[in-house]
Amino acid sequence: MTAHARLLLLASFLLPTTVFAQAIPDDVKVQAEALRDAALQDSVAYDIVESLTMEVGPRSAGSAGDAAAVRWAIDKLNALGFKNVHADEVLVPHWDRGTLDIRITAPYPQFLVATSLGGSPGTPEEGIEAELVRVESLAELRALSREQLAGRIAFVDHVMERKKSGAGYAVSTRIRSCGHVVAAERGALATVIRSAGTSTHRVAHTGSMLRNNVPATIPGIALANADADILAYAMRSGEAVKLRLHSSARYLKQEMSANVVAEVPGNGDLANEVVILGAHLDSWDLGTGAIDDGTGVAIVIAAAKMIMESGESPRRTIRVVLFANEEFGLSGANKYAEQHASSIDQHVVGLEADFGPGAVWKLSSQVAEDALDIVAELHTLLEPMGIEQGDNKASGGADLGPLRKAGMPVLGLSADGTEYFDYHHTADDTLDKVDRDDLNQNVAAYVTAAYVAANIERNFGRLQPSNNVNTCAAEFD
Amino acid sequence: MTAHARLLLLASFLLPTTVFAQAIPDDVKVQAEALRDAALQDSVAYDIVESLTMEVGPRSAGSAGDAAAVRWAIDKLNALGFKNVHADEVLVPHWDRGTLDIRITAPYPQFLVATSLGGSPGTPEEGIEAELVRVESLAELRALSREQLAGRIAFVDHVMERKKSGAGYAVSTRIRSCGHVVAAERGALATVIRSAGTSTHRVAHTGSMLRNNVPATIPGIALANADADILAYAMRSGEAVKLRLHSSARYLKQEMSANVVAEVPGNGDLANEVVILGAHLDSWDLGTGAIDDGTGVAIVIAAAKMIMESGESPRRTIRVVLFANEEFGLSGANKYAEQHASSIDQHVVGLEADFGPGAVWKLSSQVAEDALDIVAELHTLLEPMGIEQGDNKASGGADLGPLRKAGMPVLGLSADGTEYFDYHHTADDTLDKVDRDDLNQNVAAYVTAAYVAANIERNFGRLQPSNNVNTCAAEFD
Repeated sequence: MTAHARLLLLASFLLPTTVFAQAIPDDVKVQAEALRDAALQDSVAYDIVESLTMEVGPRSAGSAGDAAAVRWAIDKLNALGFKNVHADEVLVPHWDRGTLDIRITAPYPQFLVATSLGGSPGTPEEGIEAELVRVESLAELRALSREQLAGRIAFVDHVMERKKSGAGYAVSTRIRSCGHVVAAERGALATVIRSAGTSTHRVAHTGSMLRNNVPATIPGIALANADADILAYAMRSGEAVKLRLHSSARYLKQEMSANVVAEVPGNGDLANEVVILGAHLDSWDLGTGAIDDGTGVAIVIAAAKMIMESGESPRRTIRVVLFANEEFGLSGANKYAEQHASSIDQHVVGLEADFGPGAVWKLSSQVAEDALDIVAELHTLLEPMGIEQGDNKASGGADLGPLRKAGMPVLGLSADGTEYFDYHHTADDTLDKVDRDDLNQNVAAYVTAAYVAANIERNFGRLQPSNNVNTCAAEFD
Repeated sequence: MTAHARLLLLASFLLPTTVFAQAIPDDVKVQAEALRDAALQDSVAYDIVESLTMEVGPRSAGSAGDAAAVRWAIDKLNALGFKNVHADEVLVPHWDRGTLDIRITAPYPQFLVATSLGGSPGTPEEGIEAELVRVESLAELRALSREQLAGRIAFVDHVMERKKSGAGYAVSTRIRSCGHVVAAERGALATVIRSAGTSTHRVAHTGSMLRNNVPATIPGIALANADADILAYAMRSGEAVKLRLHSSARYLKQEMSANVVAEVPGNGDLANEVVILGAHLDSWDLGTGAIDDGTGVAIVIAAAKMIMESGESPRRTIRVVLFANEEFGLSGANKYAEQHASSIDQHVVGLEADFGPGAVWKLSSQVAEDALDIVAELHTLLEPMGIEQGDNKASGGADLGPLRKAGMPVLGLSADGTEYFDYHHTADDTLDKVDRDDLNQNVAAYVTAAYVAANIERNFGRLQPSNNVNTCAAEFD
């Protein structure tokens, strides 16, 4: 314990804590602010996302691009000077999108732009041709009888809401991962959904059909928004609308991928404690994975690199984890949590970057109540960048979920998601959607938070372990 | 001649014309303004473009959609109450896009989003794999020797400029229609160009490779802008960049299509004179042909319909011509001009709508010098809608080109093209890109101009016939 920390500890007993206690010592604040300001001016983040997206590109779990991404990450992290760079092998599913042909055959012909959803089985060789039943919500779908749906195709035509928080996505993903379950229970042959995205361009939005890794039994297809409009217009004619579809989507054999890990080792008494900076290395196959999650990869690497090069080792170890297969089952996140179950208490806090390159606008957290003063002081360092103070209900991100459920506190730096779902999970997820200044602002926020977390005497406490499972049952709608 | 017109004619001899003569009588002005204001409030245009794009959709020359569009137009024009509705048969080429697979194979693999250009031959069955040579202009391409290009693929990486006038498109289309000619002369195996469009989305921009209907001898492919970026980045590595491509594009046998014609018959002494309102019925196959040229079809039909329903027949006949195959060789425009060669002098003026639904911002013309006072007076009726007065060098549009070259004057109503090339000739050309208010403003401008042209005593004179041919020779660059 430093003299400074001892003084603070003493102060916290002698004085009303809410008024006088200082959670973050001045020297840590000064250095955090210096890192923050340097990141705002420039960071290596853009070069990293450019290299990953241009030289590797699409990297869905189990694909050749996934393997290339692991090699790229090892090489890049070594070249940047990180320590303990290694790949922890993770077995991943390998689903192949194949080809898709989908068209209206009645009342008039029209082809549609669409994509198979992740995990969709293909159609029989001869395809499927059937009448369409349109609903606008999962509740409306549940209200249909077997008689109404059997032998037909369900069209769930929900328009995703555009929000800074991205909150509209939760409704849409629930339709994506549960709509086919509800439809299949009622004998439907396939489900077609309006893309779980806000793009007005002719690029369909993919994403996983899985919930709790239960395989889909009927094909699931997402239409570009303009194509959902075409189908909705045809339904308004009052005549029977028929679709014909053929998909060659299928599962191939599982492949070995890896979580790629690199460290900025801590120095001294707290060196065995770890601050996790997480992002995911995989991407969907349609784009080049720039905003999902090339920018996350770039942000956490750039933030850790700045701390590494700041002249002094952090007190705690900063561990960058580039998770395998976030998109299609969280393989890497689950594997990491299993592997580190016995050392979970050494994971003092985690930050994940997986919401694109929009400027960070909110700091939230899920930490022990008695550590909220640290978050509040951290917020004062972020506030000059226009970052609000959020609540203590942060999820921390999908890849940190298993660690959080095991008790690890998380900090959440919310990127502005207003435009995120215009590009996310579509062919449009490419480098040109990344704004350098916003990306640097993200690095500034992450480096500030990570530096503070790695260097203060106190920590964020522990969370109550939980094991909530959210199924496709109506009660979770 | 009306009493009013006789008075004007007298006045034009007695007084300095520029000061006192009135080209458009007050009663015509009053009625034109009433039509203009009614169109601004509402018109049938949106319903027309919605019906065409949703119920017919893609309609490239010779396709089943093309035939469906001709039936749609006949039915729609009859239903709206037009007279002399008929289809004038036109033989059109039928080029089929087939499939395209294009990917970088060295220095690292990456698939690319691209599309074959109209008229491209396919590749051999085994595809083409060759090293890439990148240039940024036609001049740079011409400067390459056979030694530098033979056996390679030419990549013309010109970034189209965004302009209200759409002027950047001329440079890009010249590269599209002449780049392959220059490259083939030097032994190149194929040409790849950056899309002749401004979209930042992953939709490639198609368009014709033909100039003066000379068939292309090597494949021509357009990359989406993001994909041209990927290729340009790979070239900067300094290593040899190789592309592999396979295309099944091909010509099928010619098909019969049609110019669809409908009239608002004139009444009285000038009824055998014709004011042409033109647009094209075909579209490229990637989108649903909303802005190119569904909106043009809608604008001219809606404008003519308003005049038809205004209570009194126009003095001249208003003829709506929906031309066949504008996109791939102007088949309908050439056929119409041939068919009407003997009556060309009865075509007093033409207006074409083929630049999307952006608000009209400029009135230009190509009329006899002594008719410029009519254009100036017409402008006073359009000015309240924010429309500027342009020059007397209007092209009048591609489909009116053959008539203009034969001496028919044209008026040009320029739509704001700032965003036009974000959607044009791509899969993104869909109904949701059409703004109702801007579309109505277009109808207002067209109905004003058409009403005036059909009802004034004077006409726009004649143009000097011309037969300029712009080839791929360097002198025309």
